[in-house]
Amino acid sequence: MKIAVDAMGGDFAPHAIVEGALLVSPELPEQVTVVLVGDQAAIQEVLGDRPLPGNIEIVHTSEVILMGEHPTKALAQKPNSSISVGFRLLKEQAIDVFCSAGNTGAMHVGALFSVKSVEGIMRPAIVGFAPQVSGQFAVLLDIGANADCKPEMLDQFGEIGSIYAKYTLGIPNPRVALINIGEEEQKGSLVVQAAYQLMKVNKKYNFVGNLEGKDFFTDKTDVIVCDGFTGNVILKMAESVYEILKSRGVNDEFLSHMNYEAIGGSPILGLNGNVMIAHGISSPLAIKNMILLAKRQVESEVYLKIKQALS
Amino acid sequence: MKIAVDAMGGDFAPHAIVEGALLVSPELPEQVTVVLVGDQAAIQEVLGDRPLPGNIEIVHTSEVILMGEHPTKALAQKPNSSISVGFRLLKEQAIDVFCSAGNTGAMHVGALFSVKSVEGIMRPAIVGFAPQVSGQFAVLLDIGANADCKPEMLDQFGEIGSIYAKYTLGIPNPRVALINIGEEEQKGSLVVQAAYQLMKVNKKYNFVGNLEGKDFFTDKTDVIVCDGFTGNVILKMAESVYEILKSRGVNDEFLSHMNYEAIGGSPILGLNGNVMIAHGISSPLAIKNMILLAKRQVESEVYLKIKQALS
Repeated sequence: MKIAVDAMGGDFAPHAIVEGALLVSPELPEQVTVVLVGDQAAIQEVLGDRPLPGNIEIVHTSEVILMGEHPTKALAQKPNSSISVGFRLLKEQAIDVFCSAGNTGAMHVGALFSVKSVEGIMRPAIVGFAPQVSGQFAVLLDIGANADCKPEMLDQFGEIGSIYAKYTLGIPNPRVALINIGEEEQKGSLVVQAAYQLMKVNKKYNFVGNLEGKDFFTDKTDVIVCDGFTGNVILKMAESVYEILKSRGVNDEFLSHMNYEAIGGSPILGLNGNVMIAHGISSPLAIKNMILLAKRQVESEVYLKIKQALS
Repeated sequence: MKIAVDAMGGDFAPHAIVEGALLVSPELPEQVTVVLVGDQAAIQEVLGDRPLPGNIEIVHTSEVILMGEHPTKALAQKPNSSISVGFRLLKEQAIDVFCSAGNTGAMHVGALFSVKSVEGIMRPAIVGFAPQVSGQFAVLLDIGANADCKPEMLDQFGEIGSIYAKYTLGIPNPRVALINIGEEEQKGSLVVQAAYQLMKVNKKYNFVGNLEGKDFFTDKTDVIVCDGFTGNVILKMAESVYEILKSRGVNDEFLSHMNYEAIGGSPILGLNGNVMIAHGISSPLAIKNMILLAKRQVESEVYLKIKQALS
């Protein structure tokens, strides 16, 4: 298995990426290799005198897509960027998953142009993870790819989120809930009211109804469905609660799961391949955990399961 | 000043309401009276042998609107309910503010039918309070009255939220921010993109741009504008973080401000009068704090300031 990581992506690249790869390297089983996609000299500089472990490879690239760049333009103008090359490798199946903490837009557009959406997928969704009091994580989608969603999209997020929870997280018959401002089906915005009607008759997954803000963490569901606006807002808010309380000296295991580093990566679901994005601020620990999640995701063959479900 | 509280509203009424009134009674200045609107015998039963303090009055009512009842029907069928009577007193200006932890829908409809919206207000909004790291609270609106909002409504929430922050909370030239999933003005849903364009040219308040989920608590703004879906979700989520961490033994002052009891009441803004709702689960402490907020709000004459601004 080859897990490729964009060595040039993120606020602390290439340093944090290379260090993350070194951190995870001793924990990987024999058949797993990390492929650092990026500038050879820059990666070498981070390594310094340390030898490259046998399970880390470098694919040299000469260009970088910066955080602020326009995704489509940048991808067209920089064919030798780490993101462009990563997606080329993914399309050619030379790697099993491509991960980046770089320009999210470029990752999204690059995925749609290279491996493309699975046929039947309305819009790919980005997955986040909501820590539960039990210690588990619920799958939260969408967390930012689609600020405006149609009811049909939310219904489909329920389906692909359920497949992810089942195969990648190993939860049998995952419960799927819809974020709303009340428990009753006639509550909420027009879009979620309509989505509820689709979800409650959808036999492809186990819909358990509406989920209020007070129950995001209380083990009431395994998959949390919402539009990308709501998902993004709550995920960033949870991360900030962790940051603030940590800076105030609070130490708690449940709270520590709100730290973005705890999982590290956010899969883009609904693609013909494994693609994962990460926080721009990703630390070596976050990169390490993203690689471990990527491994789990590749093993679960979840993108093929989604493809099968939709065909 | 007469602060009326629905003694029959809330999961723990009349007990929690009466105890809350007793709790706040010694702290009120001479000219302030609490009016308990509800069943005299039920209130008397909670009092037991304790005498009614001189600054608490009872207005007897014989009916109760229950939590699950349809607002419009219940108000029509129960003219002697505590909510119906409370609004009658408010309309007649026999009281200065009406507060209830009861049926939120009935409070909303009752307000619109009795004191009515201020002319020019598109939709009244419910106000929540987002604790800031500094110890202050930011005004958050809407937190649930309007799940779907037009851009013009969000712009107006900015205006009335700013007036509330200025007069009731005493913040000069309050900063107003719009919840979004990025800092740039072209980010987010179509509605917030359009709202941004209105807000940035609105000279009636001090718009400081978009606010991401990571900055709800970081003192970047005094007023946080969003639709009632988003506001409801984040407020309930913050309350649940407090509940969970408290149950895990975490003690922290900033965290304690996420407790709904810290403020206790949520004003409905944009009405011709002072109306405040509270959590169904309100405790005596929450009721006490709601009464103290109501006092501050009456003193600030904020509803008249909003009326003046819109005329």
